[in-house]
This record gives sequence, structure tokens and C-alpha cells, in this order.
Amino acid sequence: MAKPKNILFIMFDQLRQDYLSCYGHPHLQTPHIDRLAARGVRFDNAYIQSPICGPSRMSTYTGRYVHSHGASSNNVPLKVGERTMGDYLRDTGMGCWLVGKTHMAADAEGMARLGLEPDSVIGARVSECGFDVFERDDGMRPEGPDGLYDAAGALRYNQYLRDKGYPGDNPWHDHANSANDGDGNVLSGWFLDNSDLPANIAEQDSETPYLTRRGIDFIKSQGEAAWCCHLSYIKPHWPYIVPAPYHDMYGPAQFLPAVRTAQERAAAHPVFTGMMKAPVSTAFSQDRVRDKVLRAYMGLIKQCDDQIGVLLDWLEDTDRMKDTVIVITSDHGDYLGDHWLGEKTFFHNAAVKVPLIVYDPAPQADATRGTTSDALVEAIDLLPTFLDMAGGDAKAVDHILEGQSLLPLLHGTDDQARDYVFCELDYAMRPLADALNLTTREARIFMVADKRWKLIHFEGGFRPMLFDLQNDPQEVIDLGVDAAHDAIRAQLLEALQLWSRRPSQRTTVATGALLAARRKPSRTGVILGAVSEADAPADLTVKYRGRKAPKWDS
Amino acid sequence: MAKPKNILFIMFDQLRQDYLSCYGHPHLQTPHIDRLAARGVRFDNAYIQSPICGPSRMSTYTGRYVHSHGASSNNVPLKVGERTMGDYLRDTGMGCWLVGKTHMAADAEGMARLGLEPDSVIGARVSECGFDVFERDDGMRPEGPDGLYDAAGALRYNQYLRDKGYPGDNPWHDHANSANDGDGNVLSGWFLDNSDLPANIAEQDSETPYLTRRGIDFIKSQGEAAWCCHLSYIKPHWPYIVPAPYHDMYGPAQFLPAVRTAQERAAAHPVFTGMMKAPVSTAFSQDRVRDKVLRAYMGLIKQCDDQIGVLLDWLEDTDRMKDTVIVITSDHGDYLGDHWLGEKTFFHNAAVKVPLIVYDPAPQADATRGTTSDALVEAIDLLPTFLDMAGGDAKAVDHILEGQSLLPLLHGTDDQARDYVFCELDYAMRPLADALNLTTREARIFMVADKRWKLIHFEGGFRPMLFDLQNDPQEVIDLGVDAAHDAIRAQLLEALQLWSRRPSQRTTVATGALLAARRKPSRTGVILGAVSEADAPADLTVKYRGRKAPKWDS
Repeated sequence: MAKPKNILFIMFDQLRQDYLSCYGHPHLQTPHIDRLAARGVRFDNAYIQSPICGPSRMSTYTGRYVHSHGASSNNVPLKVGERTMGDYLRDTGMGCWLVGKTHMAADAEGMARLGLEPDSVIGARVSECGFDVFERDDGMRPEGPDGLYDAAGALRYNQYLRDKGYPGDNPWHDHANSANDGDGNVLSGWFLDNSDLPANIAEQDSETPYLTRRGIDFIKSQGEAAWCCHLSYIKPHWPYIVPAPYHDMYGPAQFLPAVRTAQERAAAHPVFTGMMKAPVSTAFSQDRVRDKVLRAYMGLIKQCDDQIGVLLDWLEDTDRMKDTVIVITSDHGDYLGDHWLGEKTFFHNAAVKVPLIVYDPAPQADATRGTTSDALVEAIDLLPTFLDMAGGDAKAVDHILEGQSLLPLLHGTDDQARDYVFCELDYAMRPLADALNLTTREARIFMVADKRWKLIHFEGGFRPMLFDLQNDPQEVIDLGVDAAHDAIRAQLLEALQLWSRRPSQRTTVATGALLAARRKPSRTGVILGAVSEADAPADLTVKYRGRKAPKWDS
Repeated sequence: MAKPKNILFIMFDQLRQDYLSCYGHPHLQTPHIDRLAARGVRFDNAYIQSPICGPSRMSTYTGRYVHSHGASSNNVPLKVGERTMGDYLRDTGMGCWLVGKTHMAADAEGMARLGLEPDSVIGARVSECGFDVFERDDGMRPEGPDGLYDAAGALRYNQYLRDKGYPGDNPWHDHANSANDGDGNVLSGWFLDNSDLPANIAEQDSETPYLTRRGIDFIKSQGEAAWCCHLSYIKPHWPYIVPAPYHDMYGPAQFLPAVRTAQERAAAHPVFTGMMKAPVSTAFSQDRVRDKVLRAYMGLIKQCDDQIGVLLDWLEDTDRMKDTVIVITSDHGDYLGDHWLGEKTFFHNAAVKVPLIVYDPAPQADATRGTTSDALVEAIDLLPTFLDMAGGDAKAVDHILEGQSLLPLLHGTDDQARDYVFCELDYAMRPLADALNLTTREARIFMVADKRWKLIHFEGGFRPMLFDLQNDPQEVIDLGVDAAHDAIRAQLLEALQLWSRRPSQRTTVATGALLAARRKPSRTGVILGAVSEADAPADLTVKYRGRKAPKWDS
């Protein structure tokens, strides 16, 4: 395997796959991201493991399904003991650093039980999902009657704004994420009515350019060390607001129409119906709201693309494109009113498909440069890919890592063998679970899909949903109870069941060691089923032959 | 809940349920164990989680299914981070101590990754499956051409024998587990031909009385402290040999006939057939061998029962029966030639049903004293039971513990709600997996049973097996492909599938906290779906109203 020196692992937050021009958006031009796609491979069937930040990212950072690592919802801590991208890459001699967001919640109880101090090197890494932290910034400094959502949230960025002269205790809110009416009144970005207004901040001081500069600062700080940098942007995630000039670049002529039909709403599955009733869904189902938010969402993406341009230019100028792998992806999409939903916590492609572009400078990747791949790939494939790129051996840890290295696809040496992708949602903590009278075990959903079909399986006794991705690419015809599709549903359900029974926790013995054990007889004296010495190979019983001892005499 | 002061948790190794007189053995009288049963509850449908020592015990000690904790075979270490009986009980102020066997393999890689020193208090507990060690004795000091099976195995006991004057470097083998021909030649207990001979040792120096004394030593050492003592006997596990007078107490007139039919062998499932071909199975399928081994096996059990008598007498004499819960169980059974098998690694009741007797001195248990229960119970129920007995609250950790407290059954206040029991076998490390050309994921088996039916599901594409426990209690008629039982198989398979999808890894947030999260709106400032201020409750958006900031001016 080739070994590039560095990996720049860029993640956006809540970026839909179809909102980049290289993925087909007709009006939102993203030439810089497209430039990287032209030099790498663009994956058209890239799925995340859960349509919400925390669990999706924990899967990406551990290389394991949500059902395996257990951090199944935002604020469900990743349990102590799960190996992370940082653990694997540092073992190869490559640093693994964070600049931006992870949505990691530390397992304080588990750490205390094992005596791990949060301020020790190991404890800090366990707390930060295995990363060494150059800057942690989850992009969240909201405040309510019970105080700050996260006292450490956007702390450095907030201070940066104050140092730049933005006043008040929370310029993250008042400037980066709010507009202003000109009379000094803050118009909060939390209210979607304000999404078409410019954020009250110089564009260069807003979060996306700030993180670009922090990423460059990080790379400069590393000198000649080999690094993986997780440059993890906050945007285009809400609050939906963007500074000028990005706030008014797009209007109805550039919007994709909302994908939603009266029929799908009328016949919706009970859980889907419940999702439609959430305030964020009813808001996005109004054209007036969608019209405002799309301006901000598209402007945020345009700004992200421009920042990728800044970054790529700098990497070119400093000659780093030659030995740096660059990945661009997202943690999930955004419904934006499609299917009568806002946010992301369901299983249409708007939520579960993400952009994935991988640029590998190695000569072995020349064969695939500028191509697209329709292989079924998952977010959990990134960690084994990086491990292989760093000179490790992902196969050697396939008893832990559940993804597959993308290197064979990137080098054009093999197709991906995966038949199905899997995605999950745990809504046990949401009001909807109460509305549907579900236990915490029942308020969970699994998705299994191949290139043609997508089955959504609900715990709690609900009927399934099924989409024909070929004949109904917009996913508006639910075949979940269609008798003509019994066999397809049974086939996908069988794939889900096989997956559910996988040995995901047998993580302490490598596959190779399991295989070796089959083939090597015990040579430390345990003899089973030998009636006499003659029944067992002489070399195995050597210690039991010719032994002398006095007879015990009562 | 009542709170007894102490818990004496006695486990035998490889003790079949039906080899105790209280469970119906017609010739092997076990009056002391029966005495405890007469004062407690005898569970007739007690199942273990895997028919082999290591994984069965790891389930008992963690309260979790094998598929959840991952230590799926002997020598597959229990991964760092799994909470144990010791963790839970110490939190209630009760010590949790080991005297005897656990079959624990420490996760050295995981400990090193987290910086846990094996000789620290926390590291030692993690290494020893959560127990504080009074004496660890897995009863194994075999030796082969590659050296000792376990350099620490039976170390103290072996030294005890040397101190008592038994000569040589391995009196564990030469005396405790071998006979002698009278001319000074050691006749090893590893060879079944020697199983009817007396072990070359004073009965009082053999392993079972030794461990009884060590258990008493432990209890004496505790003074007034509250303790759970896992007194974990090695026997009647192989090597099959026992000292006089126990070696010749039983003969053919006392043997249960082998349960095996020519038909079941002829029509056996391919994996079952493979198991039959193992040397230990072909050995036990010979009446001559079974005749020898049963003498030792029954003698070992008789000795175990006598030692329970010693222990109970001492507890009575020291007035400890009043405040000490006593549990007697086993980690799995022994085929002893039934179904053409030796050892235990399959799913007939000979292997997966175990004795389980619980004596609770609390007055609340008076209602059930001397009764039997046919409730479906599992080994993983013991930990939540102990936790409740110690004054903890097993329900509060039901996001981790997968068993159910037996207290309602012991106090006669409620029936057990469980519909099915589950058991698993991982044979990925066995030659049979190669013989059947199976991957490490495929060489696994699941059992699901209720009181009437038992389904055995094989990974790797094999057909299932099914037994009707009511009409075929000997389990010799495999209904795995019988068309008349399609619906029953489908029902049991559905139960297995539901179980497979359970959220076993969401261990960092308690069920109560998940439920509370549904019912409490965020009060830290995240506002979703509000078009304007008026759309969200005023008390939640209070920090976003009336804020002032200067307008940024380019």
C-alpha cells in the first residue's frame, strides 16, 4: 500500500450530497470542491451510519456501527474502551488531531471507574474520542434559562470574536449567528424568519473562514511530523444564517423544488407521521420558511466551498498536495422540507446520503482520478482507509473495525464487496417515543439498503417501509405493505437479521488468531478424549509419560 | 428489598442439573445440597449463556449475554470497560471476592491502551473480572511440550501440596489428578482409562476440600465486613479422577443410561455430526469409557456434596446462616456420552441446563422456602439478584444488565416475565470450523428456548434444529426440517432476531435518563423549528429576546 505523509480529513456538518455542483446541483456552483473531485474519486453511494451528528460521528471515528459502539444518540457518551481513529493512527506513527467539531460526549462514569483522569494524556484522548485537540469547536454556544448548552462550546472562537472587538458575553450568538436590525437589536439566527438576513459579522470572522485558518495554523504547527487532521467544519448546520455577501446569492430561481407529495403524507407510516409533526418539520413544510432558510443554507455551502478554495490554494502553494490525502464528506444531510420534514432524523437520501470525495496523491490512484464510483460505501470505511494509507493493516483489526478500506476502489484494483449498507436511529430520548407509547428499546429504527432497494425496519411492532430507489428515486412511494414486494422485504430483512447477529463485540482476539487457533493443537498439556496414552500424539502427552511419584499411603 | 449481610455464591464446574438427588438423580444422593434446596428455591429451568466455561462465566459475572460482552470462547479476553459483579456490589458497600475459578482472561492490550497497570487496585480488578482475589484457582496446571498451560494455574494449591510433603514440581498433576500403579508410576488422570482409579492423594488434600477450607478462611478473614464470596469450585470438571473413598462408590447399577439413539446419529445436523466426531465424543460414545468416567464424575459430585455439608455445618455453627444468602449453581453441564457427545459445547439440556438453588434467609423468602420454580431463568439473572439483595437497584442499571433480579420469584411476589432464554456458542477457534469451511463469523450458534420448544440457529447457512421439550424431553427427535413445525420455528427465530437487535451497547445512559429526556424540553437555548420568537415558549427563548449589539459595519 502507498503511504502518503498526511491525511486532511474534512467533514462538513449537515451537508446534503445533492447540494454540490459536482453531485449535480444545477445552480449552486462549488468549483473548489469540484476541483478536488476532479483529482480524486467521487462516491455517489456514500451512506452515514445514523442521521444525526453524534452517533454518525462516533461511527466514523470508531469504524463501527452504532449498534456496536452504543453511542446511539447525541449526548449518549461513547463508552470507555472503544478504540478510535487516533488509537489506530498513532500506532502507525501518525498523529491524529482535531480542529473543529466531534460532538463527542465523554463517558465520565466509565473513566472514573477505571481511574482515568481527564487531564492525563490518555484520559484527555478518551474524553475527546481519541483525538489530540488542536481546537475543539462544536459550533454551539446557545443559552437558555438553565444556562449555556455547553460551557466549553465555541469557547476559543467566542474569545476570538471578543478580541476582535465584537462586544458582549456571547458574540458567537449576537454576531456570528444573528442579524441586526440597524437599531442595535439582535435578530437571532435561531428564528428562521431571520435566515435571509446577513449575519452581523465580517465574513472573514465567521466560523467557516475561522476554522480554515485554524486548520492552516495546525498544519503549520506540525513541521515535518506526519499527521491526520480532522478539519471538522460546523456548517452548513444550523443556526441557518450567513454573513454578506453569501446571504443573498441565491433565491427561488436557484432552489431545488421541495420533494414532497400529498399522497406520501396521507399514507405515511406512524413513525414518519410523528416525525412530520415535529415543529421543525411543520416549519420547513411552509414554502415561506423554506424560501428563507434555503438562502442561508446555500450561502453557507457557497462559503464552505470558497474556504475549500482557500485551503486547496494554500496546500498547492506550500507543495502539500503531493503527499497529503484529502477527504471531503459530511456527517448527514438535511431534509429542508423534503418529505414534509426538517432536520435529518429519518432515512430518505436527503438525510442518509452524503458527499464523499477522496483525493489520494499516490501514483496508484492515478487510474481513478476524476472518476466516480457507485459502490456502496459507508462512513465506517474511512477509518480502515486511513489506517491502510498510514501504513497500518485494517484487515488485521477487522475483528473491531466493521468498515472496509476504500483503497482497492481508489486504486482501481478491486470492487467493493459490500452488498448492503446499514443506518440506524435511536429516538428513545425524543417526545415522539412517548407519543407513540414506546419503551426505550422500541424507539429505534434500522435501515438496510442496496443499490436498488431500501428497507426501513422499526422496532416496536410497526410495519416496515420500503422504497424502490431505481423506479422511485425521489422516495415518495412507500412499498412497505405492498404485497408484490413481500419477497424483496423478506430478503432485506434477512440481511438485517444476519447483520444484527454479527460478532461485533469479539474485539479482543484478531481474526487471524482465531483462525490460527483452529489449526494448532494445544501443546500445553490439556488432553481431551484420550482413553489411554496411545490415543493422543506422543509429542503432546510427553509430560505425562514416565512420571514417577511415591504412592500416597493412608 | 431485604438486605442480607453476605452472599455466598457457590459455583461448581461442569455439574449437570440431573446429577443431584434434589433434581431427581435416583442413585447419587446429595443430601447436603438437597438440604439447602429444602430451605430455599430450586430452579428447574435455569440456563447458562454459553455451554463452555469462559463465556458462561463472563456472562454470569457481567450480567450480560455473550453477544453483548464479546468474550465468546475460552481465552477470548473480556474487554476492558465491561462492568462486573464486583463493580456493582462494591458500589453498595459490599466486598466482592474470589475463592477459586473464574476462567478470566485479561484484556492486556486494552489495559495497556488505557494505561491500566495490572498491579494497581483498579488494574488488578479489571484483570480478575472485577473480583478482589482471596485465591484464584482455575484448577488447571497441565503441562505440554510448550510448557505449562497457565504458569499461574493452581499455583498456591500446588505449593500447598508440596508443603504437605507431596513431592515433585507438579503434585497437582502427579497426586491430585493422577493415580499410581503402586510401583511409583504416575497414571495420569488425563487418560480416561485411569478414571476409575483413586487419585494418589489424601482425600482432605484434594481440590474440593482444599477450596472449602479456603472459603472458610476467607469468611473468617472478613470479620464484620459485608461480603459476596464467589466460592468457585473446580469440580466435577475434568481431569476425571477422585481420591478414595469416592472413586469406587458408584457402578453400573447407579449409572443413568446414556441418552442416545442410532436415529439421531444417522440424521444429525452437519455441525452436530462434526461435534460427534471430536475425540472426546467418540471416547464417551464407548460404554467402556463411560463406565470408567461416570465412577469418577459421580464420586467427584459426592465429594462436592460432602464439602457443602462441611460448609453448611460451619455456617450453622457460626450462626451465619441467618444473614448469608447462599447460591449453588454450575457454569454448564457435561454430555457424558449422551447424544454421542462428550464435554459440553452443544445445546442439549445435559449441557445448557444447570442446577440453581438460592437460599435467602430474609423473612420475605419464607413463602417460597423448599419450593421449586419452573420459571425460565438465566445465569445473567444472578448479578441483578445480588445487586438487589445488597441494597442496590438492578432496575437502575437495566441499560447494562440484561438479566432480571430473581427476588420477586424468591419472595413469591411476582412471576418472572421472561418468555425465552438464549444461549450461544462460538466455535471459530475449533478445528470443526475448518472442517466445515466456515469463516470466523460463521462458526457461531445461537439457541433460543421457551418451556416447550428449543430452536438451535446456526450461522453459515445450515438448517436449524428444533426440539419439542414436552413430547421429546430426551431431545432425540430433531424437528429442524419438519414441515409441520414451520410456524414454531418461525416464531422462535423471530424471538432470536428481536433479541439480536437489542440495544446492548447503549450502556452509558440509564433507561430513566432516556425517559426523562423525552419529557423535558431543552432549556439551554437550542431552538428548532421556530420561525419567529412567538413560535417557541417564552421561557425557553428568554436569552434571545431584547439583546443589543452594535451593527457590524464594513
